[in-house]
Amino acid sequence: MQINLNADLGESFGAYRMGDDAALMAIIGSANVACGFHGGDPSVMASTVRLARTAGVSIGAHPSFPDLQGFGRRVMQLGAAELGAVVQYQVGALMGLAQAQGVRVSHVKPHGAMNNMACEDAAMATTIARAVHAMDPTLILLAPALSQLALAGRAVGLAVADEVFADRAYADDGTLLPRSQPGAVLHSTEACVAHVLRMVAQGGIVTASGRLLATPFHSVCVHGDNAHAVATAAAVRDSLQAAGHQLCTLPALLGQGTAGG
Amino acid sequence: MQINLNADLGESFGAYRMGDDAALMAIIGSANVACGFHGGDPSVMASTVRLARTAGVSIGAHPSFPDLQGFGRRVMQLGAAELGAVVQYQVGALMGLAQAQGVRVSHVKPHGAMNNMACEDAAMATTIARAVHAMDPTLILLAPALSQLALAGRAVGLAVADEVFADRAYADDGTLLPRSQPGAVLHSTEACVAHVLRMVAQGGIVTASGRLLATPFHSVCVHGDNAHAVATAAAVRDSLQAAGHQLCTLPALLGQGTAGG
Amino acid sequence: MQINLNADLGESFGAYRMGDDAALMAIIGSANVACGFHGGDPSVMASTVRLARTAGVSIGAHPSFPDLQGFGRRVMQLGAAELGAVVQYQVGALMGLAQAQGVRVSHVKPHGAMNNMACEDAAMATTIARAVHAMDPTLILLAPALSQLALAGRAVGLAVADEVFADRAYADDGTLLPRSQPGAVLHSTEACVAHVLRMVAQGGIVTASGRLLATPFHSVCVHGDNAHAVATAAAVRDSLQAAGHQLCTLPALLGQGTAGG
Amino acid sequence: MQINLNADLGESFGAYRMGDDAALMAIIGSANVACGFHGGDPSVMASTVRLARTAGVSIGAHPSFPDLQGFGRRVMQLGAAELGAVVQYQVGALMGLAQAQGVRVSHVKPHGAMNNMACEDAAMATTIARAVHAMDPTLILLAPALSQLALAGRAVGLAVADEVFADRAYADDGTLLPRSQPGAVLHSTEACVAHVLRMVAQGGIVTASGRLLATPFHSVCVHGDNAHAVATAAAVRDSLQAAGHQLCTLPALLGQGTAGG
Repeated sequence: MQINLNADLGESFGAYRMGDDAALMAIIGSANVACGFHGGDPSVMASTVRLARTAGVSIGAHPSFPDLQGFGRRVMQLGAAELGAVVQYQVGALMGLAQAQGVRVSHVKPHGAMNNMACEDAAMATTIARAVHAMDPTLILLAPALSQLALAGRAVGLAVADEVFADRAYADDGTLLPRSQPGAVLHSTEACVAHVLRMVAQGGIVTASGRLLATPFHSVCVHGDNAHAVATAAAVRDSLQAAGHQLCTLPALLGQGTAGG
Repeated sequence: MQINLNADLGESFGAYRMGDDAALMAIIGSANVACGFHGGDPSVMASTVRLARTAGVSIGAHPSFPDLQGFGRRVMQLGAAELGAVVQYQVGALMGLAQAQGVRVSHVKPHGAMNNMACEDAAMATTIARAVHAMDPTLILLAPALSQLALAGRAVGLAVADEVFADRAYADDGTLLPRSQPGAVLHSTEACVAHVLRMVAQGGIVTASGRLLATPFHSVCVHGDNAHAVATAAAVRDSLQAAGHQLCTLPALLGQGTAGG
Repeated sequence: MQINLNADLGESFGAYRMGDDAALMAIIGSANVACGFHGGDPSVMASTVRLARTAGVSIGAHPSFPDLQGFGRRVMQLGAAELGAVVQYQVGALMGLAQAQGVRVSHVKPHGAMNNMACEDAAMATTIARAVHAMDPTLILLAPALSQLALAGRAVGLAVADEVFADRAYADDGTLLPRSQPGAVLHSTEACVAHVLRMVAQGGIVTASGRLLATPFHSVCVHGDNAHAVATAAAVRDSLQAAGHQLCTLPALLGQGTAGG
Repeated sequence: MQINLNADLGESFGAYRMGDDAALMAIIGSANVACGFHGGDPSVMASTVRLARTAGVSIGAHPSFPDLQGFGRRVMQLGAAELGAVVQYQVGALMGLAQAQGVRVSHVKPHGAMNNMACEDAAMATTIARAVHAMDPTLILLAPALSQLALAGRAVGLAVADEVFADRAYADDGTLLPRSQPGAVLHSTEACVAHVLRMVAQGGIVTASGRLLATPFHSVCVHGDNAHAVATAAAVRDSLQAAGHQLCTLPALLGQGTAGG
C-alpha cells in the first residue's frame, strides 16, 4: 500500500532558526512550507523550495493567520472575505517562489489556529476550501481525517488528502486530545511507531480508549522540532517500509488510491 | 499611435485609505498593485483585482522593500538572493489573488526606493529582472525609459515597457530632478498635459532645459493621490485621445509597437 | 460641575493619515494616543505629544492588541502574562516619547477589541488593571462606566475615570448597542448633544429605552474621524459649557470630584 | 580595578529562541535588552527583566532599526526626527516593563546597523545621544571606545561607558576589522581572553597590528549565541577576576572611575 509522510517546514525567519529541515527532507514525501505569516520569509521559502526539489519532496503551502509573534497559534477572528484573501495571498506567494525554480505547489494545509478552527467550524472550512479551489481546482487539500476541513474540501470539489498524527492521541469523536490532558502527546519513538502501525493496520483512527474510527487516510504528519522528533519521524518511515508500505508524495498518492483503507 | 497610462493603486492598508482607486480605474489602462510590503493587504489586493477586472484594466505587481512604516520609500540594503525572493514573493502573492478571479498579472513595476535604486544600480536591476524572468518570461517589466532597470530587463529577455512621468521634470541625463529642486514636480494640470504631449510629439524625454533625449516609450505614469491628481490624469488621457492616440493596456500595447517612437 | 472630553488620537501610521488631530486638540481635554500596535508610529506619537502639549491637553496611552492590519478591532486571545506585557510595553513607549518632551502620561485607555473584551471579561480586566497599577499606581484608568474594566481598576487601587459615549446608544444592561442594530450609532450632531446633556442632567447612562442607569461619570468620549465628527465634538463641548459645566483634563478632574453624579 | 562585562540579551521572539540568556546572566554585569524592533517581544522583555533582576544584572535598552526580518543588521536611512523617536519609543517600552518590576533601565546601547552607522556618522550619533538625553540625562550611553557615538554622548552631557569587544580584532584607526577579513573574529577562548587581558593591561585598544590606541574603557562586550560563546564569556570573566579586577554593573562602575585607564 502507498502512504505519505508530511511535515511542517521552512519555519525559520530571518536570523531565527527553527527545526531541522534538511534532516526531515530525507524522511518525508511532502513538505508544508510556511508562507511568512507565522514563520518563513521570502529567503527561507526560496531555500526550502530548493531543499525540497533536491530531495524529491512535493511541497504545499502552509498558510496561517497573520501572527508572527504568536506563531500562528492564537485564535483570531477574520471575516470570510479576508480569510480567503489571506489564504490566497500566501499560497500565491509560495507559488511565485516555487515556479521560479520550476517547482509546482501541489497541496495546501492550513497552519496552527487556522487549521484547528477550520477542523471544527464548517463555515470557516468552506471559506478556506473555496479560496483554494478558486485559485487552482487541482490543488490537494491536506486535512485531518474526519474533520470539517476534509469534508468541506470534498464538498467544493478538491482532492483531499486525509492525515493522521504520529504523535497525538485521539478522543473518541476523532478530535485530538487537548495538549493539556495527560497522554495527549506521545513522547517515545516506540509509542509513535506503534500508534501509526495500528492505525494503518486497522484502517482508521484508533482513539486513546482503543476505539476504531474507520476512515481511509493518505498521510501521516510527523515533526522535526528536535533531534528526537527527527529520529521518531525516521522510525515511523522505517517501520512503514518494513511493513511493506511504499512511501510517496501527495500528488503521486492521490492518483493511486489511499492508505489505511 | 497606441499608448498606455499606468498608475499605482491598491495602496490602502487595513483601516487606512489611500488614493481614489475607483476614479483612477476609469482613466488608466494598467494598474500597479501594491503587494503588502509598502501598502496593500490581502483584502485590499483582492478588491483592487476586482476593480481592475471590471474596468478592463490590466494589472501588474508593484513589489517593495519590506517597509510599511516608510511606505517603501526608505533605502534598504538587501542581498541579491533576498531581493530576488522578496520580489518573487510579492508577485506570486498578487498572482494568487488574481488567478482566483480569473485575472492574469501581466507586468511588474518595482515601487519606491527599490525602483529608484534599480534605475541607477545595474547589478540590482539585473537581480530584479532575473527574478521576474525566472517566474514567468512573458511578464512585462514596466521601467522608466533610459534607466538601468529598463536595460536590465531587455538584457535578460523580458519585454520592457518604458515609462515617462506626467508630473515630473527631467535632468539632462534622463533622471528625474530630485523633489527638493524647484520645478521638479509639475503641479498644474496644464503643465502636465503640455509635458506629456511634448514628449509624445518629439519622440522622447524632454528635459527641464528643453533638451530631447530620443527614446521610444510605451506608458505614461499618472497619480491619483487627491482630486487634483485624478483630474490631471483625466486631462492627460483626454489630451492624448484628442491628439489621435489610442489608449490601451500594456499587454495589448506590447504586441503592437511603441508610442513616442 | 467639571467634566472631561476625551478622544482617540495619533492613529496615523507612516504615510497613512487618519483623523483630524489638530482640530480635535482644540476641543478635548484628554487624548488617548495610539502606541504603534493598531495605529501610530514613533514619529506620529512624538508629533501627537507635541500637539497635546501645545493645546494643554492631557495624554493617555491607548494600547491595543498587536494588529495593525485589523486596526486592533479583531478579537485575539492572549495569555494573561502576555497581555500585561503588551500593555506595559505600549504605555512605556508613550511615556518614553512624552518624557522627552517634558510631558506626563496621566491615563491609560485600552483600544478596540482589547477594550471591548475587558469590559465584559473580569479576569482580563483585572490583568490589564494590574499591569497598569504595577507600572505606576497614580495612572488613571479611563474605562466605560459600569464596565468590568472600571470595576477592576478600582479593585486594584487605580483612580478610574468613567466615560460615556456621545454618539452611541446603550442597552438596558449598560452595554453599547451593537453597531449592527438600528439606532446604535447617533449620526446627527443634535442627537449626540441631546444624549450627552440628558446623561449629565440625569446623573447616569440613559439607555435607548429611556431607562436611567444612575452612575457618576467623568468623561465623554467624542470622535474626530471626519469633519462632521469634529463639528459634533465641538457642539458637545459648547453645549456643556452653555449648561454651566467646566471642561478640564482628566488629572485636573480626578482630584476634584466627578461629573454626572 | 573595576570593569564591566556586557552582552546582548532578550533577542528571542515569540516561538523563536535565540541565545542562552540564563547562562549569560550568571556571567555579565549589564544586559542590553532587545526592545522588539530586531528581536524581543513584550513577553520576552518582561522575562528578561525578571532574569536580570534575580541575577543582579543592570539593564539597558538595545534599540534597533525597525527590521525584525533583518535582525536590525540592515542599513536603513531614517530622518533625524524619526530616528530619535524610534530610539525613545524602544527605550520607553523597556522602561515600562522594567518599572512594573521595580527595575531601573540604566543604560542605552544601539543595536546592529544603527550602532555601526552611529559609530561613523557624527550627525546620526548626535541625534541618538540627544534623544537619550532628552528622555533622562542620567542614562548611561554604552558605546564603542573611540567612536563618534561615544564622542557625541559626552558632547550632549551623557555619562558614556566605553566598550571594547572580546572577540573582535581592531584596525589601526580603532574600528573593527570587517567580518569579511581573515582574523576579524577571534574564535578561540584563549585568543579572546588574551585580547581582553592585553587591552586591560596596556590601557587601550590593541589593534591587529599590535599598535596601542590608548583610551580608558569601562566595559567588555561578550556574546552568548552558543555554548562556546558562553564558555568564552565565562573564561573572560574568570581571567579578569584572576588578574585582580572587580566585575560590576555599569551604574556601579560609572560612579567609580574607569577600567583600562
